[in-house]
Amino acid sequence: MIIKKSESFQIVDKNFLRSHIGDDAGIIAIGNKYLVLSSDMLIEKHHFPKEMTFYQKGFKSVTVNLSDIAGMGAYPLGTLISLALPKNICRNEFDELINGILEACSFYNSPLIGGDTNEGDELIISGTGIGISDDENVLMQYGFKNKDLIAISGEIGLSAIGFEILNQGLEKTKKRLIDESVSSEFIDKSVSKILSPIAKVNEGLLLKESNIVTSATDITDGLSAELHQMYNSSNKHSKKSKNLGFLIYKDKIPSIDIIEKIAILLNKDYQDLIFNFGEDFELLFTINSSKFNEFKDYFKAEEYYIIGEVNKSNKIQLSLSNGKIEDIKLKGYEHFK
Amino acid sequence: MIIKKSESFQIVDKNFLRSHIGDDAGIIAIGNKYLVLSSDMLIEKHHFPKEMTFYQKGFKSVTVNLSDIAGMGAYPLGTLISLALPKNICRNEFDELINGILEACSFYNSPLIGGDTNEGDELIISGTGIGISDDENVLMQYGFKNKDLIAISGEIGLSAIGFEILNQGLEKTKKRLIDESVSSEFIDKSVSKILSPIAKVNEGLLLKESNIVTSATDITDGLSAELHQMYNSSNKHSKKSKNLGFLIYKDKIPSIDIIEKIAILLNKDYQDLIFNFGEDFELLFTINSSKFNEFKDYFKAEEYYIIGEVNKSNKIQLSLSNGKIEDIKLKGYEHFK
Repeated sequence: MIIKKSESFQIVDKNFLRSHIGDDAGIIAIGNKYLVLSSDMLIEKHHFPKEMTFYQKGFKSVTVNLSDIAGMGAYPLGTLISLALPKNICRNEFDELINGILEACSFYNSPLIGGDTNEGDELIISGTGIGISDDENVLMQYGFKNKDLIAISGEIGLSAIGFEILNQGLEKTKKRLIDESVSSEFIDKSVSKILSPIAKVNEGLLLKESNIVTSATDITDGLSAELHQMYNSSNKHSKKSKNLGFLIYKDKIPSIDIIEKIAILLNKDYQDLIFNFGEDFELLFTINSSKFNEFKDYFKAEEYYIIGEVNKSNKIQLSLSNGKIEDIKLKGYEHFK
Repeated sequence: MIIKKSESFQIVDKNFLRSHIGDDAGIIAIGNKYLVLSSDMLIEKHHFPKEMTFYQKGFKSVTVNLSDIAGMGAYPLGTLISLALPKNICRNEFDELINGILEACSFYNSPLIGGDTNEGDELIISGTGIGISDDENVLMQYGFKNKDLIAISGEIGLSAIGFEILNQGLEKTKKRLIDESVSSEFIDKSVSKILSPIAKVNEGLLLKESNIVTSATDITDGLSAELHQMYNSSNKHSKKSKNLGFLIYKDKIPSIDIIEKIAILLNKDYQDLIFNFGEDFELLFTINSSKFNEFKDYFKAEEYYIIGEVNKSNKIQLSLSNGKIEDIKLKGYEHFK
């Protein structure tokens, strides 16, 4: 019907395009650059603790989308945010929400590129993070080898603790924990982590630039879920590296003693807090152990934690303080209900 | 805290980045390419007629996102789709939905790059369309000059008619219209347009390649809303072109006689159907009139309709059959309720 078929179709189809699905983000090659794209949808009752302000909800919606970009070691180019707004949202709540979104974009140096606004039954914030890399070898969830070190970019389990503190009543729970000699600093850090999480964007870029990190992902769903994803991704993509497994040392998990103590006080299983809650938005990554000295040029010792190693066990396991080894199971967690 | 700040931050900040908001899509410069990005969120009760199948809902979610890319004359690189799924959705409905999304991606030659799935109170499909252009001068909503021709890429108002036919009961309304000598072909075309809209992606690319088209947008919200947006965009961006206005000729609107007749039979205002409903996903664009002969190398005469012209009236107006001229008002429309 149309006289011409656009020539752009032919040009692009040949070898312009490479797409990858299933990692933290999809990848498209554009000339000698690599676009990294990820979408995340936040739904009020699943993703926002009820104590969260609208500003914090807006900020978090940008954080979760850029955390996936950070997990690939890509530079964040921008974010698109679409909103479903319930009828009963007030004007000042809406302004706060938008303010949180815009300040997060400014914080991450990653502009708001677009979006859409609609009326919905509940608050939903759906975002897309756009990243870019000069290098085809962005950080994937696979690529680790036997004897690589397993590391995290910061403390984990704190978001889970912060959530439980809020859930059991902030003031009274805080008082109870302080009475049991938990520092108020640790409590505040935990509450801040659940209400105002930060994506480790610069850290992700440095992990990529170091050329020593063999794989990475961001910790959204909990350490257990992310380890299982990396294990499955490796089995799918790195056919030669069969039987690789992970061994995590309980005693190497930062602040494990405090976390275990708080878990008992909050009537929770410490393993659930560390492995199954997530929402920490720290990076989980593997380091080529023979080049670990070079890694130290990029990060100070207090900026990362080596928590385990890749081995040939074909299992995902935890080594307890007494040397006993048990499997780290994949366990779902119902957030914020 | 971190020893190094990633060098990528500095590299990209200088002149890597250019962002544009407020048009059909945002634009980011990447080297000598231009990324075009747009997000659209579809909510069950606002955007899907109840007669729509899950396959059609999935297909439409890709269409609306790529229609914005088409409105910029960019090549569609891919789509990200996030879903909020109500608890009561069945497995086969979900499969149909995904099937519609994937077949649309295949139809538009634009892969599914990623997305997210959550449980929500209602069905929401939130998408992001990614396009690319070799040329900085993608088709914006501004750029038209005095005496440019105003054109559309296909018939408009049909989605509105299709919706009303479904709304008043397909079988009995169809019979009633056929009894009044409306062709069943026109009825079927209208119903198909509301249930299975198609984005004019190849047409958008050709409009861009022709170098004769001075501005463009896709018709999502109705001809009136799009004309008002182009008018406002021109006033904002083209400071030299003050007082530009649009004159649309009623008699040049394709199938106007049938539309007017059907409007009466359906107890609707024909102007609402043509100007205020939208959902046609046709392209609205302006052509440099002195180069109109070249335009004809790109499209056959039956593939576009000249419906008016740009003038210096500073108004958006409709010329009726009797020569009387009236303002085209901006009027909201409640879809699908």
